[in-house]
Amino acid sequence: MGPQEGVADDPLILVSNRGPVEHTRNDGERTAKAGHGGLVTALAGLAGHIEDAVWVCVALSDEDVAVAREHDGEAFEPEGDGPAVRVRLVELDGDVQRKFYAVIANPLLWFIQHCLWDLGRSPDITRREIDAFENGYVPANDRLADAVAEEVESRGGRATVMVQDYHLYLVPGRVRDRCPDVILHHFVHIPWPHPDAWRVLPPGMREAVFNGVLGNDIVGFHARRYARNFLLGCDELLGLVVDMDRLTVEVGGRTVRARYYPISVDPDQLEATAGSPAVVEHERRLAVNRRDHLILRVDRADPSKNILRGFRAFDILLDDHPELAERVTFLALEQPSREDVSQYVDYLEEIRQLVADVNRKHGTDDWTPIELSLEGDFDEVVAAYKSFDVLVVNAISDGMNLVAKEAALVNRSDGVLAISENAGAFEELGEFAVTLHPFDVQQQADAMFAALTMDGQERRERLAAAAATVRENDVAKWLRDQLHDIRELREEGA
Amino acid sequence: MGPQEGVADDPLILVSNRGPVEHTRNDGERTAKAGHGGLVTALAGLAGHIEDAVWVCVALSDEDVAVAREHDGEAFEPEGDGPAVRVRLVELDGDVQRKFYAVIANPLLWFIQHCLWDLGRSPDITRREIDAFENGYVPANDRLADAVAEEVESRGGRATVMVQDYHLYLVPGRVRDRCPDVILHHFVHIPWPHPDAWRVLPPGMREAVFNGVLGNDIVGFHARRYARNFLLGCDELLGLVVDMDRLTVEVGGRTVRARYYPISVDPDQLEATAGSPAVVEHERRLAVNRRDHLILRVDRADPSKNILRGFRAFDILLDDHPELAERVTFLALEQPSREDVSQYVDYLEEIRQLVADVNRKHGTDDWTPIELSLEGDFDEVVAAYKSFDVLVVNAISDGMNLVAKEAALVNRSDGVLAISENAGAFEELGEFAVTLHPFDVQQQADAMFAALTMDGQERRERLAAAAATVRENDVAKWLRDQLHDIRELREEGA
Repeated sequence: MGPQEGVADDPLILVSNRGPVEHTRNDGERTAKAGHGGLVTALAGLAGHIEDAVWVCVALSDEDVAVAREHDGEAFEPEGDGPAVRVRLVELDGDVQRKFYAVIANPLLWFIQHCLWDLGRSPDITRREIDAFENGYVPANDRLADAVAEEVESRGGRATVMVQDYHLYLVPGRVRDRCPDVILHHFVHIPWPHPDAWRVLPPGMREAVFNGVLGNDIVGFHARRYARNFLLGCDELLGLVVDMDRLTVEVGGRTVRARYYPISVDPDQLEATAGSPAVVEHERRLAVNRRDHLILRVDRADPSKNILRGFRAFDILLDDHPELAERVTFLALEQPSREDVSQYVDYLEEIRQLVADVNRKHGTDDWTPIELSLEGDFDEVVAAYKSFDVLVVNAISDGMNLVAKEAALVNRSDGVLAISENAGAFEELGEFAVTLHPFDVQQQADAMFAALTMDGQERRERLAAAAATVRENDVAKWLRDQLHDIRELREEGA
Repeated sequence: MGPQEGVADDPLILVSNRGPVEHTRNDGERTAKAGHGGLVTALAGLAGHIEDAVWVCVALSDEDVAVAREHDGEAFEPEGDGPAVRVRLVELDGDVQRKFYAVIANPLLWFIQHCLWDLGRSPDITRREIDAFENGYVPANDRLADAVAEEVESRGGRATVMVQDYHLYLVPGRVRDRCPDVILHHFVHIPWPHPDAWRVLPPGMREAVFNGVLGNDIVGFHARRYARNFLLGCDELLGLVVDMDRLTVEVGGRTVRARYYPISVDPDQLEATAGSPAVVEHERRLAVNRRDHLILRVDRADPSKNILRGFRAFDILLDDHPELAERVTFLALEQPSREDVSQYVDYLEEIRQLVADVNRKHGTDDWTPIELSLEGDFDEVVAAYKSFDVLVVNAISDGMNLVAKEAALVNRSDGVLAISENAGAFEELGEFAVTLHPFDVQQQADAMFAALTMDGQERRERLAAAAATVRENDVAKWLRDQLHDIRELREEGA
């Protein structure tokens, strides 16, 4: 059964902040570039199989705005390299967009959901944050919800709406108000924390978030513990009646289901990339320059990824095992992220500083212990996936962490996965990995050493089992399971 | 019915880090000073009514150690001003004591339980923390548990043991192992956070904590939400079977009950202090020097108390309401605390700096907007309780907060309580208070203004209702409710 069968009867409306295509203008020429990554591929693939589908998203680039205006804000078929799905770009006022994205979604919601605030000192909710919510997050969500509602209404009020992520918590509530007969499904790609974490927001804001999400029929998370936390929040913060066994909550005469679907990657697409000449060339270069042991990490440069403690653990590893001097490299491919948010600027600076310190302490004229790259070229990343001996994923908190899944699939060096117990991926891959305790730097150092010195046979078996798990639980399955639940819901309603 | 009736049949053994008496030596003279505060008074009062009772605690001062040695580590009747209960002082090695108290209990456990770690950066669990647990927290708990077990065994193995607080999580497990027939009751005086907060500790440490506490028959907290969090942790971190309706967990063939008993104060004792000449003299001095409005806060200088945001809110209040210039004083009585822990030293410095900044910005030659006192004289505190117009309790997280209860009882100025929704006291006093949202400094500023300008009749009614609530739910009731549950348990077992 193909994933598409699940919603074949209903029009499908996808909604996200970042869409499946981004337009740019170079030398006077417009380019429509499809997003890469499993999520966009999977959802665009799904939409391509549905007779009537449209993807509503924010016009992020200047050229996106130009395209949106050319189509009078209506849906259109992307040109050129774009995906095979109709797209409706929603233009936001620049000030609304900035408040929505760079004040509320990041860092405020992101930091709450990853438990990253230094609560003794920050955040302060001031007029700035209240204003950014009221005049940024709310109108941005309203604009997207209105575009969705128009698409639904133009189809007679029946459709399946699939909302993506933490930027759009208010969309489902507003769409529900306008279109009571719609099926609303929301997937949250980041962790959902325990109720107290939400108390950082004043009641007006946190209740708006919860009530918005409760507009859905189904709220999907990566892991059971996030689904449970969501329901505990409905209980503690809103006083709603929840059923922790059936994972449901009653609100306004409706039943909202919390479900979990671990996201994954597209194995075929990734294998194709791994075999491409560009990746092979990067791989060759890595092989020539490498030391005996290659430790790898790949992240967006985000505090949730726990990059600093990873380097502190490596520092301890080198202290504890002088025999590793000049024989190991820690390759860190860190993609700079959210550079308009001060917390991210500071964090990147701390990373640079720590790398310099560790390299100064342990390095020699001809050996740089930590090689930090801020380039983020995906071909280089895949080449490194193929080549590592140990992959470090020591996240403080991470909804899933697709790096672990990608790396398990394409590694060709009997590489060992070392995965944080706080990464969503640990639920599926933990049994084949070396466990990392994200706050225990000594344990991380010991775990790196255990992984580096693991017997070859055991490495091979663990890696093969991890890769098989990822192949079986691919992104198509992630989507299929959601569609199955949507179909079931529709049949119940019919 | 007096509180004592509940355990009249059994010997009673109290256990805590700080005991009911502290010995000092001045000019060659030994003094035995009874601890003050409702807890010590209540428990010592209880013990005084039990035929056979002993209080096991750590010998904290040098003179305590001398006394412990004089009694060969056995129990004794404290001399002079001491309480009417036999005391057994347990001497700890200085290094054990330091690791136990200043590394593990504070800051590590305290910061976890109040959600104060800046998780992107700290804490690091290193060899130092592992060592402090293994060679500090564990042996300190073992020493106290062994002293308790000896007291139990010398009484034929039957007794009621009441353990206090977060210093002693391992005591119940070890006592249970040695004395299976004992009734073990533990009261945790600080918040118990959601399960993920405990993941800061590596599994060996967090499982030791939970398994130690699970040696009890009853675990008492201030509030239902802490009891629930404890059970959620037993479920998520240990995989035990919990019953969230009955608030119980099954472990090793036993049922452990999570219960909640909000702690309180001794109204008569406090009223007596409030009427003392020393307090009246302080009060007179406050009245002479005061401006139109007196805002008060009283805390240990602890990040959980949210002192910085309170001053930032006051800064906003003065910005927003220039008519208050020279007419309001924010009196902050902050008791320096844990001065051997770097986080506390830093925090106090941040407080001083911020107070200086706000005073420089708003003050005049003859008006100091924030008066910061680091003295912590209790007579001065009680005088301030009697005199405030607004009391600010904006805690980030606070097990109970007795300041709110003490202040409600003795205030004579129609003072308004402004209480954080995250303080345990909010459950009882919130309906008579102005609510504070601890991260929302603008809201705190607005709430201070609302409180300062509240109608006199409403102030009087709210304060009277709050005081009546505290009087009714006093510390004797706190103890009575616990003894009731212990008695019930003993009757079930009999």
